[in-house]
Amino acid sequence: MDDGKKTDAERLLALMRSHRTIRKFTDAPVPDGLVRECVEAAQCASTSSNVQGYAIVRLRDAKTRARLVEMTGGQPQVAQAGAFFVLCADQRRHELAAEDEKRAYEGNLETFLVDVIDTALFAQNLALAFEAHGLGICFIGGLRNELPEVDRMLALPHGVLPLFGMCVGEPDDEPMARPRLPVEAVLLEERYPRDAEMREQMDRYDAETREYYLTRAGKSLTWRGGVARKHEQARRPHLYRFFESKGVRWR
Amino acid sequence: MDDGKKTDAERLLALMRSHRTIRKFTDAPVPDGLVRECVEAAQCASTSSNVQGYAIVRLRDAKTRARLVEMTGGQPQVAQAGAFFVLCADQRRHELAAEDEKRAYEGNLETFLVDVIDTALFAQNLALAFEAHGLGICFIGGLRNELPEVDRMLALPHGVLPLFGMCVGEPDDEPMARPRLPVEAVLLEERYPRDAEMREQMDRYDAETREYYLTRAGKSLTWRGGVARKHEQARRPHLYRFFESKGVRWR
Repeated sequence: MDDGKKTDAERLLALMRSHRTIRKFTDAPVPDGLVRECVEAAQCASTSSNVQGYAIVRLRDAKTRARLVEMTGGQPQVAQAGAFFVLCADQRRHELAAEDEKRAYEGNLETFLVDVIDTALFAQNLALAFEAHGLGICFIGGLRNELPEVDRMLALPHGVLPLFGMCVGEPDDEPMARPRLPVEAVLLEERYPRDAEMREQMDRYDAETREYYLTRAGKSLTWRGGVARKHEQARRPHLYRFFESKGVRWR
Repeated sequence: MDDGKKTDAERLLALMRSHRTIRKFTDAPVPDGLVRECVEAAQCASTSSNVQGYAIVRLRDAKTRARLVEMTGGQPQVAQAGAFFVLCADQRRHELAAEDEKRAYEGNLETFLVDVIDTALFAQNLALAFEAHGLGICFIGGLRNELPEVDRMLALPHGVLPLFGMCVGEPDDEPMARPRLPVEAVLLEERYPRDAEMREQMDRYDAETREYYLTRAGKSLTWRGGVARKHEQARRPHLYRFFESKGVRWR
């Protein structure tokens, strides 16, 4: 922040690299003006044909947030963070536009995909904007544990699809950065590599991951092991019907 | 870049606000080292349980890119930009991990959603990283016009799901910024507003949008009108079956 000789790119890439998921926050509030400023800048993210298929709901009510701690599997930061938001894919405004223009609204998987991607592009801009202000963030996928109840709590109309939560606040913790996949496993040339090549990259990464978990937790864990356990059973099977009940069509 | 007194937050928010979709590029190449640096920083974006469900394929072959110009509905920048990438949700590595660990891989809508969101969080970080270097970007949703052919061209294995393209290069154009929805239409308090309130915001926005299109194109157009036309007919109906053929399960 005080080194005037760094370029914008150097500063931004350093900010990206300094990202940590923060799960412990001080009780410092997150000012309304700052939230508004960050949301407004984040809205400048790319959006497919300018549909801007997202909305963000700030939850302040202490009871609601305490209930969400339970619903997200016991994540205290949902109540504790200076601010908590629910990120939604928003097709409601599109439905209203169709009604006002006396046209049909025909959604399908393409529509769903566009609005989910729009929401995530916006969310990542927003996360970085908060982080540039020295705040920490934590996305809460556990919001999807019980979407029908989230839906009732927020009185979400037809077309509004809650996707994930976001805690924002002053960090009260300095976790280690978790290593990422080797860039060679992610940045590919012309084609997707053969399984044997991808497995070599995964081996490299598992060696690094094992080291990280030994240092951090004294346990020998690998990325492969974690990912395999994660996908062994289908999770959150209610999503299909829930989104359908909110108007999503698949084909 | 040269004002040392600006804070990191001021610089980053200014960068976000300066985002424009660039559709015309000079023929300046995008150096490999710069791409690698940006991808590596972008990988630090949040990822659900560290699954990192994405991959990015750089396409250099001129024939492939010329063919993609047609397939995306005639967007010359796909061939012309210094670099072109295909962003994929990547479940292949997860399938390999399951196989290596002798566990089942059970995907469903939750898995699909997680990997799509991971991909978009990464993509937005990447877009900003390029923009901080003074480059312009353009996401190409038209990649989804003919996904089975994209799939063949890139020899994508089971589990790799192309989602959108991305042009990157030196801008040869300075388009006006398109106004976004009023922040009040996107940043909500405690609940989703009633239709009448949302329509008031849409009215405000349509007034602004009409002004913008009159200035830019001499036409009286509204956001509502554009959105309504866009959703009148279901688009890209092949996505459901295509993703299913790549291993996606919905429930």
